[in-house]
Amino acid sequence: MDTDPGFIAAVEEARQGAAEGGIPIGACLISKDGEILGRGHNMRVQKGSATLHGEISALENSGRRSASAYEGATMYTTLSPCDMCTGACVLYKIKRVVVGENKNFVGGEQYLQNRGIDVVVLQNEECIQLMENFIKEKPQLWNEDIAV
Amino acid sequence: MDTDPGFIAAVEEARQGAAEGGIPIGACLISKDGEILGRGHNMRVQKGSATLHGEISALENSGRRSASAYEGATMYTTLSPCDMCTGACVLYKIKRVVVGENKNFVGGEQYLQNRGIDVVVLQNEECIQLMENFIKEKPQLWNEDIAV
Repeated sequence: MDTDPGFIAAVEEARQGAAEGGIPIGACLISKDGEILGRGHNMRVQKGSATLHGEISALENSGRRSASAYEGATMYTTLSPCDMCTGACVLYKIKRVVVGENKNFVGGEQYLQNRGIDVVVLQNEECIQLMENFIKEKPQLWNEDIAV
Repeated sequence: MDTDPGFIAAVEEARQGAAEGGIPIGACLISKDGEILGRGHNMRVQKGSATLHGEISALENSGRRSASAYEGATMYTTLSPCDMCTGACVLYKIKRVVVGENKNFVGGEQYLQNRGIDVVVLQNEECIQLMENFIKEKPQLWNEDIAV
């Protein structure tokens, strides 16, 4: 699953976020037919945004869609989703969430499963390293993003 | 609580959304000291946004804040919060969510309480009417917003 186009796009987004001096978390929403609905990365630094986490950015960049567009969709994200992004996946009835890693942060995976959403955790080495380096370099920024 | 400045601001936001031809849901985030941190309304129509619900708009318009800014804060919203907005309140550890009404839609109130957040439902007549009229006039738009 590390080679799924949606996961590759999510990692590209995370790298892009890092290159922009932002929080290196990316996401990509893929329809049941394999179409990219939207992709994006955390924009806290770039846009001064408190809500544009990776998954929210991917949903936002997907634009307005009817409920049927999300049926069977997969959200790929480089890091375990926070409570907000978890709730967004529940709202849109995403079928599956593929998580790059949850070593640096564990979010709402259990709740996603409770709400009937499949969760796969890849423990992808690049995702782990991106976050580990970021947290080491900018712990305050990371704490701000997860409100601790 | 119908006369709290935060609730009045949320209702003003909902009216503004209606005046713009949008979905009439507003929200306002108030600090523990009574300061308005941010206010906003649903921007699905106005910005083609899948994520700027009332509460997300209020958080977004609050800008970047450290975790301490949200301590003891109250989110006023004219309608029961959807799963995404519920998750956003959980992420930011909002202390209390004051809901204008839940007759037209019941969102994540139980989950908020499970996560230690106080919930108050006002059943405010203006909020009920705003949503009732909107849902009658534009049922498809409403369904799109809650992904059904």
